[in-house]
Amino acid sequence: MKKQVAVLPGDGIGQEVLNGALDVLKAVEDQYGHEFEIVQGKIGGAAIDHHGTPLPRETLDLCKQSDAVLLGAVGGPKWEDNPVDLRPEKGLLGLRKELGLFANFRPVKTFESLQDASPMKPSVVKDVDFVIVRELTSGLYFGEPRERRGKNREIAVDTLQYEKKEIEKVVHKAFQLASERRKKLTSVDKANVLESSRMWREVVNEVATEYPTVEVEHLLVDAAAMKLVYQPKQFDVIVTENMFGDILSDEASMLTGSLGMLPSASLREDTFGVYEPVHGSAPDIAGRNLANPLGMIQSVAMMLRHSFGLHEEAEMIDQAINEVLKAGYRTGDLSGHEKIHPVVKTDEMSDFVVEHF
Amino acid sequence: MKKQVAVLPGDGIGQEVLNGALDVLKAVEDQYGHEFEIVQGKIGGAAIDHHGTPLPRETLDLCKQSDAVLLGAVGGPKWEDNPVDLRPEKGLLGLRKELGLFANFRPVKTFESLQDASPMKPSVVKDVDFVIVRELTSGLYFGEPRERRGKNREIAVDTLQYEKKEIEKVVHKAFQLASERRKKLTSVDKANVLESSRMWREVVNEVATEYPTVEVEHLLVDAAAMKLVYQPKQFDVIVTENMFGDILSDEASMLTGSLGMLPSASLREDTFGVYEPVHGSAPDIAGRNLANPLGMIQSVAMMLRHSFGLHEEAEMIDQAINEVLKAGYRTGDLSGHEKIHPVVKTDEMSDFVVEHF
Ligand SMILES: CC(C)[C@H](C(=O)O)[C@@H](O)C(=O)O
Ligand SMILES: CC(C)[C@H](C(=O)O)[C@@H](O)C(=O)O
Repeated sequence: MKKQVAVLPGDGIGQEVLNGALDVLKAVEDQYGHEFEIVQGKIGGAAIDHHGTPLPRETLDLCKQSDAVLLGAVGGPKWEDNPVDLRPEKGLLGLRKELGLFANFRPVKTFESLQDASPMKPSVVKDVDFVIVRELTSGLYFGEPRERRGKNREIAVDTLQYEKKEIEKVVHKAFQLASERRKKLTSVDKANVLESSRMWREVVNEVATEYPTVEVEHLLVDAAAMKLVYQPKQFDVIVTENMFGDILSDEASMLTGSLGMLPSASLREDTFGVYEPVHGSAPDIAGRNLANPLGMIQSVAMMLRHSFGLHEEAEMIDQAINEVLKAGYRTGDLSGHEKIHPVVKTDEMSDFVVEHF
Repeated sequence: MKKQVAVLPGDGIGQEVLNGALDVLKAVEDQYGHEFEIVQGKIGGAAIDHHGTPLPRETLDLCKQSDAVLLGAVGGPKWEDNPVDLRPEKGLLGLRKELGLFANFRPVKTFESLQDASPMKPSVVKDVDFVIVRELTSGLYFGEPRERRGKNREIAVDTLQYEKKEIEKVVHKAFQLASERRKKLTSVDKANVLESSRMWREVVNEVATEYPTVEVEHLLVDAAAMKLVYQPKQFDVIVTENMFGDILSDEASMLTGSLGMLPSASLREDTFGVYEPVHGSAPDIAGRNLANPLGMIQSVAMMLRHSFGLHEEAEMIDQAINEVLKAGYRTGDLSGHEKIHPVVKTDEMSDFVVEHF
């Protein structure tokens, strides 16, 4: 198989975790005789520094010509006081919007060997395996007006807007995913307060009629925030709007022991996707070979599966990660509440994964 | 001391938990020679059934004439399909707005004796002691427009709006609280995406100059959702807008082992306040004497402290609760992940508290 992959390291630890992930991808290429053409591009702070904008035209074009995108992370203190349009996050948000990536999949699967690292009791996190499907191109993140008002700019407004068809698209994706899994969909909203949530709930109930084998449950976002830490095993697929998805998926990451473990895929109707770890650019540890590359490496596995249909190859990566963790290797973030394992570096961790192929 | 207390049981377990709390209040009255005149009123579903509206004029008047309000809980499946203005929650939201209760205090303090009940590791929840200060009368909950639009009502809109002075008021409250505690304030926003959050952050930094002894930290809401379960001990006072506060405080409740444990106070500039447990009306267990009354009872203690300045009396309640839990008594919600304690009923639990005075 021959594919072009756009690679956007971004800022902070983005480059480091991508280096390891690309080594893993190379090993897959060699072993299975595929050809992945890697083309690098800039996004976020790195793009601001080089091109004066967080999402240069050429980066967007590169992504559009490619079969999939691997993204590191964006952001850092250097650009924090920039005006809104010159902030690294704007590059990421622009990419999602311009490429129409309306569905963000964030799988949360706990590794038995990582129970030490989790702040949760082993009985709570054992066998947790669900996916958060977050709407990614609408809601509070993009709604207009979003502005300051008043004589002295003393009022600030953001808009939470959804169109029915935006909700339909992402809800369909979530139902499809649920029907390939344990057939349970939890839709999260705040229907006792928000108009948009009441419409969200309506749409979920409408779309549900097309998926009679999937059991549907509605949960208020505050209750969901509780249940995620209390009974996380009860979830299979969770679907929710953009802001709630942002908050809940970061919360859920703690079940696995570290945000550094979590991959994500931002998808649309076709096979194209942007794959990135859930973690940020972690400026505090950037450039020190300390970051956990496993979120990024698992994102590569998601790419192989979703964009290229290479299930065996993806499985090999997931297996290798499992083995490496079982063997006791841990990056700093995973050394956890009871520090008992040897701590390895970013590049060592990705080497170990390749060695376990 | 002579005070009038409006008592609004509301729906579901509201009446049960209030019964116990009123017994406790009576015991305080007897022991210290105070006089608390209790006047009952209706709110939520109960008010819809009797008066055709979730917040009858007479309930609002009663609250305005009283020195403080004890509220049970509102809501239930019976009214779930009602039009928005005839839903129980509307009564609660109306009460907050009409009484100008802009600051909601939600203390999260873990009990060592309840570590079994928490889904978290003991090392994580031990000695957790912070307060979430949630803005309660603005933001997405009240912003206009909030409506359906389009030919086929295919668009839904909610508005996240804040005025500077609304933020100032609640942020001042939070700083005052922090200066009486461990002098650390964490302000939670989503300043990398929202206009309202950027203004929120500006205001916090402005107000901070008036409280030079308080250390201020800004945290993005997604990071806060993580840190709450990962390093909850690091918090002292958290201040945040309405919707984020709703989500984060429910999440945080899990640290204590049960939502049933948590009290809250909704306050304004003067000493008046509405005190209610953080939990909801729990229709599934309503009327069965199974609910945990300790959230409600601790709300009574908050009332004695904040509205009446009765610190010794409040302390007596808190101490008694501590003793009862140490003695091993647990309502069902607290029997926890390792069910080892005898399970007691709602009324037994409040009796035990009084017995420990
Ligand atoms: C960087 C930020 C804008 C982004 C978001 O809020 O979507 C990040 O938190 C994420 O979850 O991918
Ligand atoms: C009942 C509901 C409207 C309310 C809220 O969202 O504020 C509740 O969840 C709370 O936290 O007090």
